[in-house]
Amino acid sequence: MNSTEPSPHATLSYEQAGVNYDLIDPLKVSAQRAAAATAGHLAAHGFTEVAASRGESAYVVDVGPFYLASIVECLGSKALVADEMHRLTGRSFYDGIAQDTIAMAVNDLITVGATPLVVQAYWAAGGSDWFGDAQRAQALVAGWKKACDTCGVAWGGGETPALAGIVEAGRIDLAASCTGLINPKERLSVGDKLQAGDAIVLLASSGIHANGLSLARKLVERLPQGYLTEVAPGLSYGEALLAPTVLYSPVTEALYQAGIVPHYCANITGHGWRKLLRHPAELTYRIHSVPEVTPVLKFIQQRAQQDDREAYSTLNMGAGFAIFVPAAHAERVVEVAQAQGVPALVAGQVEAGPKQLLIEPLNIRFGNDDLQLR
Amino acid sequence: MNSTEPSPHATLSYEQAGVNYDLIDPLKVSAQRAAAATAGHLAAHGFTEVAASRGESAYVVDVGPFYLASIVECLGSKALVADEMHRLTGRSFYDGIAQDTIAMAVNDLITVGATPLVVQAYWAAGGSDWFGDAQRAQALVAGWKKACDTCGVAWGGGETPALAGIVEAGRIDLAASCTGLINPKERLSVGDKLQAGDAIVLLASSGIHANGLSLARKLVERLPQGYLTEVAPGLSYGEALLAPTVLYSPVTEALYQAGIVPHYCANITGHGWRKLLRHPAELTYRIHSVPEVTPVLKFIQQRAQQDDREAYSTLNMGAGFAIFVPAAHAERVVEVAQAQGVPALVAGQVEAGPKQLLIEPLNIRFGNDDLQLR
Repeated sequence: MNSTEPSPHATLSYEQAGVNYDLIDPLKVSAQRAAAATAGHLAAHGFTEVAASRGESAYVVDVGPFYLASIVECLGSKALVADEMHRLTGRSFYDGIAQDTIAMAVNDLITVGATPLVVQAYWAAGGSDWFGDAQRAQALVAGWKKACDTCGVAWGGGETPALAGIVEAGRIDLAASCTGLINPKERLSVGDKLQAGDAIVLLASSGIHANGLSLARKLVERLPQGYLTEVAPGLSYGEALLAPTVLYSPVTEALYQAGIVPHYCANITGHGWRKLLRHPAELTYRIHSVPEVTPVLKFIQQRAQQDDREAYSTLNMGAGFAIFVPAAHAERVVEVAQAQGVPALVAGQVEAGPKQLLIEPLNIRFGNDDLQLR
Repeated sequence: MNSTEPSPHATLSYEQAGVNYDLIDPLKVSAQRAAAATAGHLAAHGFTEVAASRGESAYVVDVGPFYLASIVECLGSKALVADEMHRLTGRSFYDGIAQDTIAMAVNDLITVGATPLVVQAYWAAGGSDWFGDAQRAQALVAGWKKACDTCGVAWGGGETPALAGIVEAGRIDLAASCTGLINPKERLSVGDKLQAGDAIVLLASSGIHANGLSLARKLVERLPQGYLTEVAPGLSYGEALLAPTVLYSPVTEALYQAGIVPHYCANITGHGWRKLLRHPAELTYRIHSVPEVTPVLKFIQQRAQQDDREAYSTLNMGAGFAIFVPAAHAERVVEVAQAQGVPALVAGQVEAGPKQLLIEPLNIRFGNDDLQLR
């Protein structure tokens, strides 16, 4: 099943939540084709693209002494939850929202082996008055700065347009671009390094992160107390949703310092665990252990009446980032991640075989047809 | 006078057009301070920022063999004109809108001496249905590809989120990020190269480009035939506004091929000709010749009842990009630009003296207080 297919039973699917991939996908395909046709321009500058990065989470160019990686990423609709929670509690959550936005860019950029160097801010508000709320604006600035500090990146600048008539009044469209280097070039983790025998290490998520929010917001309509419904004692649904996305670049940088170069990485965002099938190779991914599922994700699964297959195909279910390494390094990856404050787990291994993901503890199989991103 | 001051007489100012810099500027200042405080992170990676690029149009990092430049830029509200013109004429102008968006990023990036290498697309629509209009979507893709071809950049990828509840239904928020290299490092054009005696060469604009659109859209309310009012025989106001922004990177690349390295560059966008005062040095910029003003800008000035000072402080008035070079190279810059199809003019020179811009043919003076971007 892919994300455009109607979901069975009375579950709340992405389509019901207002995202129709059938409409977006033809554009995506034609844009991808047009984009691929521009690669040759790099030759005039003496450079070449790393073709294997097409379809990966960041675009990579070989500029000689190192590879250059770049990306732009959108927060999505999580700011709408922050706005509603501000209305209900008076508290600004925009410090966390800033971290989420940077995480969307940085966590994608590092999948190719890049060290993030520069982040640019894109904050497009529905009107000048958005920036006039000093508490909220300062939270956004402070959270952005703090996330840059955590990732060791320079905040280069950005854009703060007021776009009345395009962005809705009182709202903000948040995005981040990120540029980094893969240096030394051996750190590149796209292409043919991934192989049978590699271990799959999963890094813990903090909650829903910034994917699945359309579904989570739709679900509020079914909750008598809305965002203030408790998902655990003392923890409201809204607050739990707003747990900031984990920044994984401190882990990937620490791995390099520890002498470990991943064969491949996958940022587990939209399409949930199906992102483990992202690499184009014909390989089987066998999962023998699944991480603990955070309360807010359990709550969403239960209230949206999703079976495990639907939940793991949409949400991160406790795993925010996957690192594929030689089996001999797997335990060391867990140690390094945990030393950076990120719980981790050796969850499974890569095997020769048809392209599929087998989540054995839950008896779930996703095949190649379940993820078509390229 | 700066852009937040009320304008005299019955002119239509930016403030009346709904952009209030008093609300945006405090956030900008605190964001700039926080951003500047992150520069130190680069040292951990063995790199340093080019501090002179703070406050310039693109952020520059010294990565050893060359400088890395990056930026994210927003189209602004020009797409609203395209939407209205589509309603009135049935024609899609999104091919030109794509070029405008890329121009916003590329024309800024090249000011620091960078060769643009990779562009990422940020297309955030108000709903999936935006992408379902195949004619419009294909125009956007084709125009984006063509602009990449013109600039010799690789289109790396991008984001096409559907952001119902954030972006207005039927609208799209367009932005582009761009990454480039300054290579060889001598091409860097920020800092202390600019000096008395340098010539000022102005490259022609094609019209309003993508700045001043809030004003231009507000003006429509005063026009009996709205966007279909003629600004010249057979040329409607709407069509004239939608002339795509000139891409100037073919000129800056050709200059390098011709052995000319500008001392400084200024992209003439918001704040009109006051952008000529962008460099922090105490220098006088004396203009002896002004380029021809395109019909749509003349029309706006006249209908908005702006005097020359107001018009040149807001709009590009025929000059889209300024190149500061040793006087001996000035005529050659004009020839190289014209060989790339971009009309150009040796407009004036840089002199020792207080920081000011003197547009002698129009008897206009802008002082340091008239532009505060840093």
